[in-house]
Amino acid sequence: MEDKHSLNDLLDRFTRIEGYKVLVHGGGRTATDLATRMGVETHMVNGRRITDEAMLRIVTMVYGGLVNKTIVAQLLARGVAALGLTGADMGVIKAHKRPVKDGVDYGFAGDVDSVDGERLAALIGSGVVPVMAPLTCSAEGLILNTNADTIAAETAKALSRHFDVTLTYSFEKKGVLSNSDDEESVIPHINEATFSSLVADGTIAGGMIPKIENSLAAIRAGVSRVVITQAAAIGTDAGTVIEA
Amino acid sequence: MEDKHSLNDLLDRFTRIEGYKVLVHGGGRTATDLATRMGVETHMVNGRRITDEAMLRIVTMVYGGLVNKTIVAQLLARGVAALGLTGADMGVIKAHKRPVKDGVDYGFAGDVDSVDGERLAALIGSGVVPVMAPLTCSAEGLILNTNADTIAAETAKALSRHFDVTLTYSFEKKGVLSNSDDEESVIPHINEATFSSLVADGTIAGGMIPKIENSLAAIRAGVSRVVITQAAAIGTDAGTVIEA
Repeated sequence: MEDKHSLNDLLDRFTRIEGYKVLVHGGGRTATDLATRMGVETHMVNGRRITDEAMLRIVTMVYGGLVNKTIVAQLLARGVAALGLTGADMGVIKAHKRPVKDGVDYGFAGDVDSVDGERLAALIGSGVVPVMAPLTCSAEGLILNTNADTIAAETAKALSRHFDVTLTYSFEKKGVLSNSDDEESVIPHINEATFSSLVADGTIAGGMIPKIENSLAAIRAGVSRVVITQAAAIGTDAGTVIEA
Repeated sequence: MEDKHSLNDLLDRFTRIEGYKVLVHGGGRTATDLATRMGVETHMVNGRRITDEAMLRIVTMVYGGLVNKTIVAQLLARGVAALGLTGADMGVIKAHKRPVKDGVDYGFAGDVDSVDGERLAALIGSGVVPVMAPLTCSAEGLILNTNADTIAAETAKALSRHFDVTLTYSFEKKGVLSNSDDEESVIPHINEATFSSLVADGTIAGGMIPKIENSLAAIRAGVSRVVITQAAAIGTDAGTVIEA
């Protein structure tokens, strides 16, 4: 998303996807760059950003403003009626500030309580394509920095009550690999049963385990399938498909 | 808008306004502050910002992100289903890049071509309260910095085909003054006829002339009335009312 050329390619691919669609984006690299330029230090714990007040202003500007509106404008130029949304807009995603746990205070980080699938489904049904920034909002009106993968999964779950939903993760590799040294060793299909044996024999390990666990949880919650693939393959059959 | 205390007060007043409503905001002071912090110089000509590529990134972040989402989140906390919009979102405001004229290149500045009153009226009718940032979008997907007063006037005109519209400008003074040295000398009512004589006798002069001319043009285009008043008086009868 954060490189002009690959963004254009991704948005071309996204535009060609038929049927109703929603785009969820990140923007962490741009946020870190802006923070550096403004003399604000970036701290990450377990891959998550610590969001103090200065960092909250930065992610609100970068995710809600720069990245979101750039994507919306580029989609509009492609004839897509894109609508930029954060969780605050019409209260589409309710969240709460993550409590301090195990001594880690993530600051203004949001954990999702619920997604308003009715409201989103009505918008989507009217031809609008939501473009969602990784920001949510507490009942008190606090903007909260929220993981984009989580927003995508929770939105997919909420929409699965209205539509047949495919949740696609744009990933740095071609899919889930059976051999991490071999970029071509993409596992084409995973389900609950094969996942257990792939974990048992050590084929799937590390950070990929929670990612697939979350995908399987989305499927149990009603999502039809989860695809893990490269940005350059979105809209094709390539990648790993996770199904029930 | 850019002071926390007066923003809270203004949003309280805005929340209490009955009937359908739209909020249009600026954010110039915050944009200038961020520009200074990032080492980007601010240049103004005739009170308008010269928007080069670096400044466009800044206003997209500040207007579309920080200011817009702060207002949306604060309205949500007050029970208002606020929806942040730029002209790019669903293409609600079509614009073009201002051509170089009289040797002045405003850069990525937008002049409004049309506002999609149908789309906005449908949203408003469904209980949504649009919160509009002063950004528009060209057909080519260029984000453009656009004067907030212009967006307010053009939106009011487009909505006047659907609703009885009052356009209220939040102003630094209590209204249009008959004596610029006397804060209490608010002219309560202006129409086409009284405006001509107030200009002829020198009571109204300078930058107030185009402001009232634009207000009268909005009324000729269908807006019921224009109110020029202080932020602290929004929702009351105070200020100058311009009517046909």
